[in-house]
Amino acid sequence: MTNRINPRSGTAFKLAKGQRLVIIDPEGQQVSDLLAFNADDVREVVSNGRTFDYADTIYLTTGHTLFSNRSNPMLEIVADDVGTHDFLLTPCSKDTFERCYEDEPPHRGCFGNLAAALAPHGVEPDDIPCTFNVFMNVPVDGNTGGFTVDPPKSEAGDTITLEAKMDLIIGMTACSAPKSNAGSFKPIDYRIED
Amino acid sequence: MTNRINPRSGTAFKLAKGQRLVIIDPEGQQVSDLLAFNADDVREVVSNGRTFDYADTIYLTTGHTLFSNRSNPMLEIVADDVGTHDFLLTPCSKDTFERCYEDEPPHRGCFGNLAAALAPHGVEPDDIPCTFNVFMNVPVDGNTGGFTVDPPKSEAGDTITLEAKMDLIIGMTACSAPKSNAGSFKPIDYRIED
Repeated sequence: MTNRINPRSGTAFKLAKGQRLVIIDPEGQQVSDLLAFNADDVREVVSNGRTFDYADTIYLTTGHTLFSNRSNPMLEIVADDVGTHDFLLTPCSKDTFERCYEDEPPHRGCFGNLAAALAPHGVEPDDIPCTFNVFMNVPVDGNTGGFTVDPPKSEAGDTITLEAKMDLIIGMTACSAPKSNAGSFKPIDYRIED
Repeated sequence: MTNRINPRSGTAFKLAKGQRLVIIDPEGQQVSDLLAFNADDVREVVSNGRTFDYADTIYLTTGHTLFSNRSNPMLEIVADDVGTHDFLLTPCSKDTFERCYEDEPPHRGCFGNLAAALAPHGVEPDDIPCTFNVFMNVPVDGNTGGFTVDPPKSEAGDTITLEAKMDLIIGMTACSAPKSNAGSFKPIDYRIED
């Protein structure tokens, strides 16, 4: 069964160890901010710094594992049609809109959507770290350190598949920030495979 | 008064809004992992993702501000002799030694030193995010995303100065990981200026 995350919204659900999460960009050029928490203790959460440390790269794709703040494997990327994702930036929030999109009406963003979806699982807003931003295209200039947020390279129907390495609570969005998805707000689909 | 952090150790102290923290590399090629917490509520902590978002670069130096997970300014870099610091990687820990330094005797690392120093201020180990790694030299290849941990560019006596934008609890180390400091363990000095 394929589930849909409507434009500018979010959801949370359980993913058991060994299950695979297939994230689908149904229309192309859309971003999904992804979080993973240990289902038995939500103080353990995915960490960009630990993941970078163990991968020796900031660009993550098939074969890389997302690690927790306690250095445990959480999700392994087992298939990836796109190969371009971001793990540098925090989810867009009301503050992001105020600072980066002065001409846009403010929106609670992926941060607010994740906070609302994860609250029933005992996750507080301050516990939300950098998300793994699926399909988000943030090329970094290695000389200056500068980066841009470019349109995603994903085309309609492209997927990434992640396998759970422990029992997880997953938070996921269909991104709300104009820059991340070339100014169009689209849905994200996903399914869980045993 | 200049204070000394002995090799492979850490400390924590208060820094009032408006005070300046001068971090000194007394012998050269040493790294100091830095954390900042809101002194009135330690659930607010420095965030690499928020900082990158608002700076539009992953290489931070004079004029850049370190932001919190709540998007508030915490520390502004007001002077910098070196210009090369890292905000991608988590502090070295027992796990880092097990995964990255198999031939080294294990050490609790900067993570353990920060956890011990910050515990009296109500900070739990799970609340320790990516540190701002002062003088740490992590060049990123923009094409591949790969990075290396190279010897710091800091020479004996080089400094960086950060101004507090709110009342803070600061955690700081003299780094314990061989790669970060070219295999030599050295002290870090600091002083607080009103």
